Amino acid sequence: MRYHKISDETIRRLPVYLRDLLTLSEQGRSSISSNDLASLLGVNPWQIRKDFSYFGDFGTRGVGYDVENLIRQIKKILRLSGVNKVALVGVGNLGMAVMAYPGFKRYGFEIVAAFDSAAGKVGKQIGDVRIEDVVALNTLQRRNIHVAAIAVPRDAAQETADALVDAGIKGILNFSPCYITVPKKVKVITIDIAMDLARLPYYLPGN
Amino acid sequence: MRYHKISDETIRRLPVYLRDLLTLSEQGRSSISSNDLASLLGVNPWQIRKDFSYFGDFGTRGVGYDVENLIRQIKKILRLSGVNKVALVGVGNLGMAVMAYPGFKRYGFEIVAAFDSAAGKVGKQIGDVRIEDVVALNTLQRRNIHVAAIAVPRDAAQETADALVDAGIKGILNFSPCYITVPKKVKVITIDIAMDLARLPYYLPGN
Repeated sequence: MRYHKISDETIRRLPVYLRDLLTLSEQGRSSISSNDLASLLGVNPWQIRKDFSYFGDFGTRGVGYDVENLIRQIKKILRLSGVNKVALVGVGNLGMAVMAYPGFKRYGFEIVAAFDSAAGKVGKQIGDVRIEDVVALNTLQRRNIHVAAIAVPRDAAQETADALVDAGIKGILNFSPCYITVPKKVKVITIDIAMDLARLPYYLPGN
Repeated sequence: MRYHKISDETIRRLPVYLRDLLTLSEQGRSSISSNDLASLLGVNPWQIRKDFSYFGDFGTRGVGYDVENLIRQIKKILRLSGVNKVALVGVGNLGMAVMAYPGFKRYGFEIVAAFDSAAGKVGKQIGDVRIEDVVALNTLQRRNIHVAAIAVPRDAAQETADALVDAGIKGILNFSPCYITVPKKVKVITIDIAMDLARLPYYLPGN
């Protein structure tokens, strides 16, 4: 089932809630009030209640939210219950970091294929994955891989995206620091790590 | 001057606005309506007007917002006008990616120091930066470096944060996939790249 009325802004916050709830669960907490959850997350309690109201109110007055139930509901909404196979394109420093990143598994993502255009990299083994030539991108659909991460240099990002769309990819996580244009049916999420850094100076004491 | 009333949520969105305005500026656009800006950003026009209302309304009816003026104002609020020196701790794949990332310069950040605990890495030169032993973290204050990026393994993140706090660091960008605890005077921004990936399945056609 798809929850069509949930706003993009709420969908953007759900993984944040999920991450913190997973941490609580690992710490053995079984319930939390919306005020405590809000303070943990650094957002307003009304924001949390509003976000949760999109998919039903799980809280019990005086007891708070059941942590495991919230995790289950959010995972269901985000469709994170299964394993999502991901193809990585670009195995430079950024791509290597993406592959090595321990956080992916937590959300059910597994990088099962990696591609690069550099002859020197093709054929190398990174963990369980052998780097393939980008000309083999057209095999993705056949291999049932619908999600790709782009970690190529800026100049190559758009042509990589075009090739991924041709290869039947439905979702792209773009780590290259630039915009890419794709048909509407394909969802792109652009990660700009510098953008988060940009919030920091605001909070620094008078400099 | 500090704009105390701006909410964390707005501060979170300003870098996104800034990035897109910088792209518009690079494309030669001089003005944009709040509707066009909203559609570019994928947020509601009222959200943009509300966010901008925190620091004055720059729009002119029928003409829209002046792109360069908005960029200037947002940079001023985020205090991004100068150059911020950053120390990187942990020069593995993730750290190398952080160093190589071209997006930082755009926001006035410059990684001027890098630290690692592995003897094999200390002394190596990465671009203009020579990797130092983590025992030298206590020199940061003297070197006038107030911002640090943590890219160490999960298990070493908290002790690294403690050492950075002791070294007088005021802002931490945490790339390690875990929470760190610091005194209130220190601002931490945690980047979890997997969290953004977690939004993707929601948008994928029935899988």
